[in-house]
Amino acid sequence: MIGVFDSGIGGLSVLRSLISAYPHQSFLYLGDTARLPYGNKSPSTIRKYSEQIMNFFADQKVEAIVIACNSASSCVDEKEWKSIPVFNVIDPGVRLALKQTQNGRVGILGTRATISSGVYQKRLQIAAEIEQKNLQAYGAECPLFVPLVEEGWLDDPLTNLIVFRYVQELKKQDCDTVVLGCTHYPFLRSAIQKAFGLSTYLVDSGVAVAEDLGPIIKKGPVDTEPTIRLLMTDTSKHYQRLVRSLLPDLKLADIEGVDL
Amino acid sequence: MIGVFDSGIGGLSVLRSLISAYPHQSFLYLGDTARLPYGNKSPSTIRKYSEQIMNFFADQKVEAIVIACNSASSCVDEKEWKSIPVFNVIDPGVRLALKQTQNGRVGILGTRATISSGVYQKRLQIAAEIEQKNLQAYGAECPLFVPLVEEGWLDDPLTNLIVFRYVQELKKQDCDTVVLGCTHYPFLRSAIQKAFGLSTYLVDSGVAVAEDLGPIIKKGPVDTEPTIRLLMTDTSKHYQRLVRSLLPDLKLADIEGVDL
Repeated sequence: MIGVFDSGIGGLSVLRSLISAYPHQSFLYLGDTARLPYGNKSPSTIRKYSEQIMNFFADQKVEAIVIACNSASSCVDEKEWKSIPVFNVIDPGVRLALKQTQNGRVGILGTRATISSGVYQKRLQIAAEIEQKNLQAYGAECPLFVPLVEEGWLDDPLTNLIVFRYVQELKKQDCDTVVLGCTHYPFLRSAIQKAFGLSTYLVDSGVAVAEDLGPIIKKGPVDTEPTIRLLMTDTSKHYQRLVRSLLPDLKLADIEGVDL
Repeated sequence: MIGVFDSGIGGLSVLRSLISAYPHQSFLYLGDTARLPYGNKSPSTIRKYSEQIMNFFADQKVEAIVIACNSASSCVDEKEWKSIPVFNVIDPGVRLALKQTQNGRVGILGTRATISSGVYQKRLQIAAEIEQKNLQAYGAECPLFVPLVEEGWLDDPLTNLIVFRYVQELKKQDCDTVVLGCTHYPFLRSAIQKAFGLSTYLVDSGVAVAEDLGPIIKKGPVDTEPTIRLLMTDTSKHYQRLVRSLLPDLKLADIEGVDL
């Protein structure tokens, strides 16, 4: 069983990628909906919440922990927690972007907190220097993307217009690769791809982290009856509906409440 | 000096109304930006945060406290705190709506938390029964309004389209009066008025609470050099810019940080 967590429902895009890559694995997803958003909280608070969740996952005997939240990913540097391997969403996204770009011009879409922290820009530069590649990184803040996903306006003409407005400055930089630097954003993939055009490669960190998880999952046992459990710290009806609309292809049990 | 607080910057619409009504008063505004939003937190947490802020205001010797936040207003029933009069934004809005409506059909725009709590619907019903009036209340959740204001997209064609979509169901109810049930919403007044048409009366709780404050302010001293201080628990540059764009007519000093 793999434990996946996020401050809310954005990390479901990572869960979706992992289920698609490893259909015979069981997953335990935890959304800390009672305390979202993490983005505007201090690193020490985000760190404390993340530790609580990782301790909970350790008690549940998960085989690996995936931090499916960009804010939490930048506050947890450990590669192991109580001997359980830990994966974040930033480093796999950075590696995939560097692998994909041909012209060395990489865009990053993110929340105001993620872009202004410069975490992607810095890690891209470091990774590029190690590989002796030229790289220019350009960030674009997209504060309305998360509310749009949480409202379920995914395939929607208004969403297309809003996405187009946010990315128009970044489009001038001629990036061939753009990182979806928030786990909510893959749910807007279709609108974002339309705005950039089909020749731009969009980096989905869920896909990237699924690749990294390969060696762990090959070592572990195959579940003959894999289960997907969704736990949230606040289980309002809105989230029940939203989860079904975000993951329409999955047969999901009701969200279970959890206290940390 | 009057103390005004909100979880963030929405309450600035109330502050704006109060300054306009009482230009010779000093104001102390506190936005709890480090812990926003309040809307998705439990009543006991919202209550705890509100008490901390009211204690802070009491230490600052304010003459009155205005709770310029709908979530906090529904968690604080006291009319006095340490002998200081306390005003919320819900009851004045309810009274003004009841006074204005001719056909007894009142709409309420609010966040998902406010509308599903039914606080406006219930208080409108109680107030109507006391006055022996017929009243039908209709709520509409508008989850994207707050992010739109926080992004500063006020007079904007995309905002107009989003507002129109949210209110189109409510428009069928033929309400002659609509309560702006969140202190962010007066900043979208122009878009909301366009969507409903000029014959609909929009209830701005800032205007309503300014009326209620009259007797307190008449009793108190007139400040010969009135000051407006803005305190926030998180003072990111974004808030500095946003406050100036929301209150362009006021000469404001920089936001001061505060720990509660």
